[in-house]
Amino acid sequence: MPKINADRLLKDLRDLRAFGAVENGVVRPAFSDDDMAARRWLMERFADAGLDPTLDGVGNVLGRSKNAGKALIIGSHSDTQPRGGWLDGSLGVIYGLEIARACAEDPATAHLAIDPVSWQDEEGNYLGCIGSRSWCGTLNPADEAASVGRDGTTLADRLAQLGLTDTPRLAIEEGRYLGYLEAHIEQGGYLEDAGEQIGVVTEIVGIRGMAIKCYGAQNHAGTTTMARRKDAATAMFEIGHRINEEFPKHANDRTVWTIGQATIEPGASSIVPGYAELALQFRDGSEAVLDAMEGAVAKIVGSVNARGRIRVEAGRSRPPILPSHMSEGFQEHIAQAAEGFAPGKWRRMPSAAGHDPMVIHEKLPCAMLFIPSIDGISHDFAEDSHDSDIVAGCQVLSDAAASILLEAEGA
Amino acid sequence: MPKINADRLLKDLRDLRAFGAVENGVVRPAFSDDDMAARRWLMERFADAGLDPTLDGVGNVLGRSKNAGKALIIGSHSDTQPRGGWLDGSLGVIYGLEIARACAEDPATAHLAIDPVSWQDEEGNYLGCIGSRSWCGTLNPADEAASVGRDGTTLADRLAQLGLTDTPRLAIEEGRYLGYLEAHIEQGGYLEDAGEQIGVVTEIVGIRGMAIKCYGAQNHAGTTTMARRKDAATAMFEIGHRINEEFPKHANDRTVWTIGQATIEPGASSIVPGYAELALQFRDGSEAVLDAMEGAVAKIVGSVNARGRIRVEAGRSRPPILPSHMSEGFQEHIAQAAEGFAPGKWRRMPSAAGHDPMVIHEKLPCAMLFIPSIDGISHDFAEDSHDSDIVAGCQVLSDAAASILLEAEGA
Repeated sequence: MPKINADRLLKDLRDLRAFGAVENGVVRPAFSDDDMAARRWLMERFADAGLDPTLDGVGNVLGRSKNAGKALIIGSHSDTQPRGGWLDGSLGVIYGLEIARACAEDPATAHLAIDPVSWQDEEGNYLGCIGSRSWCGTLNPADEAASVGRDGTTLADRLAQLGLTDTPRLAIEEGRYLGYLEAHIEQGGYLEDAGEQIGVVTEIVGIRGMAIKCYGAQNHAGTTTMARRKDAATAMFEIGHRINEEFPKHANDRTVWTIGQATIEPGASSIVPGYAELALQFRDGSEAVLDAMEGAVAKIVGSVNARGRIRVEAGRSRPPILPSHMSEGFQEHIAQAAEGFAPGKWRRMPSAAGHDPMVIHEKLPCAMLFIPSIDGISHDFAEDSHDSDIVAGCQVLSDAAASILLEAEGA
Repeated sequence: MPKINADRLLKDLRDLRAFGAVENGVVRPAFSDDDMAARRWLMERFADAGLDPTLDGVGNVLGRSKNAGKALIIGSHSDTQPRGGWLDGSLGVIYGLEIARACAEDPATAHLAIDPVSWQDEEGNYLGCIGSRSWCGTLNPADEAASVGRDGTTLADRLAQLGLTDTPRLAIEEGRYLGYLEAHIEQGGYLEDAGEQIGVVTEIVGIRGMAIKCYGAQNHAGTTTMARRKDAATAMFEIGHRINEEFPKHANDRTVWTIGQATIEPGASSIVPGYAELALQFRDGSEAVLDAMEGAVAKIVGSVNARGRIRVEAGRSRPPILPSHMSEGFQEHIAQAAEGFAPGKWRRMPSAAGHDPMVIHEKLPCAMLFIPSIDGISHDFAEDSHDSDIVAGCQVLSDAAASILLEAEGA
């Protein structure tokens, strides 16, 4: 199996970090000047590696292998959160580049076709996963037309500023790909806590979002007696607390839920709230668990409505994201590579965060590999991983990629 | 006893309503052009009534009686909430004017000294009760210097624009006043529900405000397991709900409490909240009840802190407002007048809303009279009262005022 070059891998990761570096983190949101400079730098690296680089009309950067035969596309995204960590998507992008180089340098694998990629805007500055959606042909034109960046610029204006308006957009080459591989930092603490080096992702969890809206009657907080009140916030506090009490009965140890937003209107200390709303999000790899949680919310809301004082409406605030199951075959290749490199120091696990494979798995078999995050921190300047884990992850994914491609040749 | 002129009373109330009228309500915040025009109109009415009118440097309008002897000052405020009702403070101001006129027209009372007044900014556009505070000598110069109106203008600039910078400010004339009387709409539903016409205010309730701050740790809402989380909002929802469950044990049927504000930071559906805060306000006529409620909050917060996951701090968010007890003697005069005019159709009751007598009672004996609010609505364009109740309230307060002044002569 080809051996990756650890020094080259780490140098490229650090060079990429320089685009938009702030303190220990990176500020490189999609389509920013720093993001575009990083993408042009990446094209040079792809060219240096003997690949055909393309920056497409939506900002994706692909390094197409000149080799014939079935290919793997391997990468992630090089855009970051508004205040992002230095690894996040960058790790998987440079893994793709390094795996293509390592395979090209080994006579046994030099003929294999590996296309590294950096998708655009996975982090949703303008529109989350716009790059992979565009590539898969599932980008809704109305969503694109409505896209506005965090700085208030429309996507159309920003593409025009960047001279990308008439640049062609890449699409899946029919028949070329066996599938897509992506590596990522875990963004949680399981691997670190267990002293393990590699996570083989089984699925990306499903996500449901609900808005729970409480309708009362606004009134004077001094003169309106408790008996006469219809205080919308009382229902909101009760429902929020009861959700936190009830959900553990339906959860497994990987299920998560968050009430990340609460609104009270008019929001003055001397006015009885007429309206209150909370935003609930919950994630699990199993639709049955998600259904049970949604059912629990309906029961709580029903019991508050039954009292007849505050009217509560609970509904989905976003289209549900279904669990995205990773290819069983690819998982097996990664698992074998992990066992070979770090025996007993790997596990199968779900991804609780969203990634481009949620989009791509609808079109191609996908797999993901995780490496440990120090202290489980991500989406923060403090995000980091140990060099030894960064190198290990790249070697394991490289072994798995070569193994997948070689097996396909034999088939 | 002098008989008030119902038609004149209602006409003046409607004329005053025209300043800043919007739909059925009034937009006449303190120091606005409409407010100042209304105050100049009021000075003309005071002059017509044979009184010496003054607009002072802080916007108060006083109609000083030319009669010698002990006086009563009677009124309220003619400024309104940003979207206020037409009666609110205006009712008490025009009552003062009408009572002065009615007494002057009756030979038996023509010698009595009654000074009607409109205090400035009871509603807190720039600084709540600035007019009565100034008159009482309890206006803190630092508070005044820091006052900014809802439109962003400093009070000093606004006073300069109005040419009031060097206008003298009125102060209590030592030895002149027996006390202060104010009428107001109830702003609640007790009188209407009971089919009664007059409320004799026993005290203005005390108000305490608390901020309850929950400190957790912000993290990724997908990758951070429930076991690892320190979700500040979970503590906020629990505490909010437990306050609503616990407070009834310490409350009487007039006690009120409101959680009118809730904040979650950073306030995104995909981020575990690192910080959450709620604002709690509670009101009662008894300090002992307020103490018990504050103690209940401390107990709830202590039990959350004892778990060691989320750190919670609960503290007062404002200096407490002590209950303001109305003069027992004045109450008795109003009660006798009410029983004479509307036998059995009056009650003693606390005021759950704040009013200028909270300021003035520190310097002079005070009393307040309530008339019914239709549907208990106030601080809203829909605020209204029946003409028959408006007239009844004025006659009762007039009888009480004359009775107080005549009794003092006899003493």
